[in-house]
Amino acid sequence: MATAAILTANDVLTLAKPLELDSGQRLDGVRIAYETYGTLSAARDNAVLVCHATTGDQHLASRHPITGKPGWWDRMVGPGKPIDTDRFFVICPNVLGGCMGSTGPASLAPDGAAYAMRFPVITIRDMVRAEVALLEALGISTLHAVVGGSMGGMQALSLAANWPHIPERVLAIAATATMPAQNIAFQEVGRQAVMADPAWQGGDYYGSASTPDAGLAVARMTAHITYLSEASLTQKFGRRLQDRASKSFGFDADFQVESYLRHQGLSFTTRFDANSYLYITRAMSYFDLAEEHGGLLADAFRATKARFCLISFDTDWLYPTELSRRMVHALNAVGAPVSFVEISAPFGHDSFLLDVPALDRVVTGFLGR
Amino acid sequence: MATAAILTANDVLTLAKPLELDSGQRLDGVRIAYETYGTLSAARDNAVLVCHATTGDQHLASRHPITGKPGWWDRMVGPGKPIDTDRFFVICPNVLGGCMGSTGPASLAPDGAAYAMRFPVITIRDMVRAEVALLEALGISTLHAVVGGSMGGMQALSLAANWPHIPERVLAIAATATMPAQNIAFQEVGRQAVMADPAWQGGDYYGSASTPDAGLAVARMTAHITYLSEASLTQKFGRRLQDRASKSFGFDADFQVESYLRHQGLSFTTRFDANSYLYITRAMSYFDLAEEHGGLLADAFRATKARFCLISFDTDWLYPTELSRRMVHALNAVGAPVSFVEISAPFGHDSFLLDVPALDRVVTGFLGR
Repeated sequence: MATAAILTANDVLTLAKPLELDSGQRLDGVRIAYETYGTLSAARDNAVLVCHATTGDQHLASRHPITGKPGWWDRMVGPGKPIDTDRFFVICPNVLGGCMGSTGPASLAPDGAAYAMRFPVITIRDMVRAEVALLEALGISTLHAVVGGSMGGMQALSLAANWPHIPERVLAIAATATMPAQNIAFQEVGRQAVMADPAWQGGDYYGSASTPDAGLAVARMTAHITYLSEASLTQKFGRRLQDRASKSFGFDADFQVESYLRHQGLSFTTRFDANSYLYITRAMSYFDLAEEHGGLLADAFRATKARFCLISFDTDWLYPTELSRRMVHALNAVGAPVSFVEISAPFGHDSFLLDVPALDRVVTGFLGR
Repeated sequence: MATAAILTANDVLTLAKPLELDSGQRLDGVRIAYETYGTLSAARDNAVLVCHATTGDQHLASRHPITGKPGWWDRMVGPGKPIDTDRFFVICPNVLGGCMGSTGPASLAPDGAAYAMRFPVITIRDMVRAEVALLEALGISTLHAVVGGSMGGMQALSLAANWPHIPERVLAIAATATMPAQNIAFQEVGRQAVMADPAWQGGDYYGSASTPDAGLAVARMTAHITYLSEASLTQKFGRRLQDRASKSFGFDADFQVESYLRHQGLSFTTRFDANSYLYITRAMSYFDLAEEHGGLLADAFRATKARFCLISFDTDWLYPTELSRRMVHALNAVGAPVSFVEISAPFGHDSFLLDVPALDRVVTGFLGR
């Protein structure tokens, strides 16, 4: 088991070569924090790359070091689970631009100070470049599958489009090949909320006594609403009051949904860097696989040999089914094998993270028994 | 024309009696700024009260004194228009809590300083109380109709429920009788954006050099997205870039939709008071006609003699058709005459303000030729 010796469960790789970015800039000494689960087979043919969403990280199925909570896809990844770590060697890196160990705006630039807003603007493809470099370092040239939800799904699609020889299977959940205007709009509001906070200080808040927690919390609150369905908000909270018998006629969090959102906003700031939020949402806004490939989405997939599985959720209004359908049409146009399913689940966009047995079945089936 | 002499086009009424509020508090010396159009008939039977939405004002069909733009419903109100000022005496007050002349948090309290957050939390019914007092002062005991979109529609419904002898016709567009959880959530985010701005200063920013414009702009940007449909954002902006040939790889407003939103946020702060935004959205969150009437919505309408017309728009995801349907059921349950139409229009919630000929026809028809 020579491979097991070099593949620890939790590691940070420093890339030997500089990373050339879509912006034309390059980054030296890029670090990629990642976790692995399971064992790479002798034939090195059982690797599954899992890409995380906007505010996710490498703690896929391990306890989060800050929140103490289970990994964000603990229910999906593990022995005997749909992404079965008894069979697959599962790799989950923190994205470039992130704040959980991979190089991002909080990292030190060559001059010894944090990059802050000197960090180059990155793209989804840049994130995937770093992931491809990680795979190379791990000696993995093909993936049994690449899997991701939301921004993770976009990385999976970018890998298939730009490194078509790597993934044998591509599973993109609640994702899109082109970021639509409404999502760009919500992403912009989030960034404006951060940048409107005087504690943001043009991004130079590292080591400062004040950090843009208030702005970041507002950004998170807005985003959080978009991740849920109207029906799930109604069912979970409705107009129920929080620890009181009647309205306060004040500006406290009278309603449970208000209290919940405030908590979501506040707790997010304990685990996420505001500048990372700016860079990652910027990368999402820029994402347009069609534009990257001459304007026709089908052209993005001409070289692929992979099988695709696309999944959407009927209550997801942020990445609605229509976006997946467009990808199906593009994949059909180039004759790529694609299965598509719209799953009925009540939780909106966040359905990919939650208890949706139909999702488990599709993932299990697509990865193969 | 004795009536015309006392009814100028633009006036402010100071209520002779204190206003008793739902909170149990009372407000003395309440001022209601309002505009009127047309002439009150000798029989005083042709008055139409138009109630404005969250950030609207009394400048219904007159040039706005700050923005210089036409009134917010200029296309709907005027000679020969659906709300025909040749036939109707149209009254549009600025709501209690507003910032265009009616008493609100920016007004001076009896101690000579601005109320700021000492202003009592108000409800939609309190707004309507002030409007009823205005009608009394104008010598109007019955309305040919009360009309409103969004929060204006809620005021119309509140009038019908609580002062059932006043309106003969109730026209509520893109409204609800009970604020749903998702809307409460978006309203809370807007307030948090304002209150997170250090320039808000606990609301005591009047006369200060810094005002919470940044926070209010973020609140407005978020709200603005919810007023539009995904399709209209795509059609209007898509992923088109703003005055540039390619992405800047920076945090400028690269996309037209980003530039548009920033402009919307910024320009809003020139005409709206941040504390008013807090109080008005609080009133909206609290709105629940069913709760006000013992828990059953139908009971809110038991005493009404009015005819109702409810209108929703198929692309309005903020106040979807389902909310209007619930009102139809409640009105049916008490045998109230109600017509309901879901209009197909591309502009989302804002459709009630925009060029929708089908809306004009329904309004014209309901008000009667």
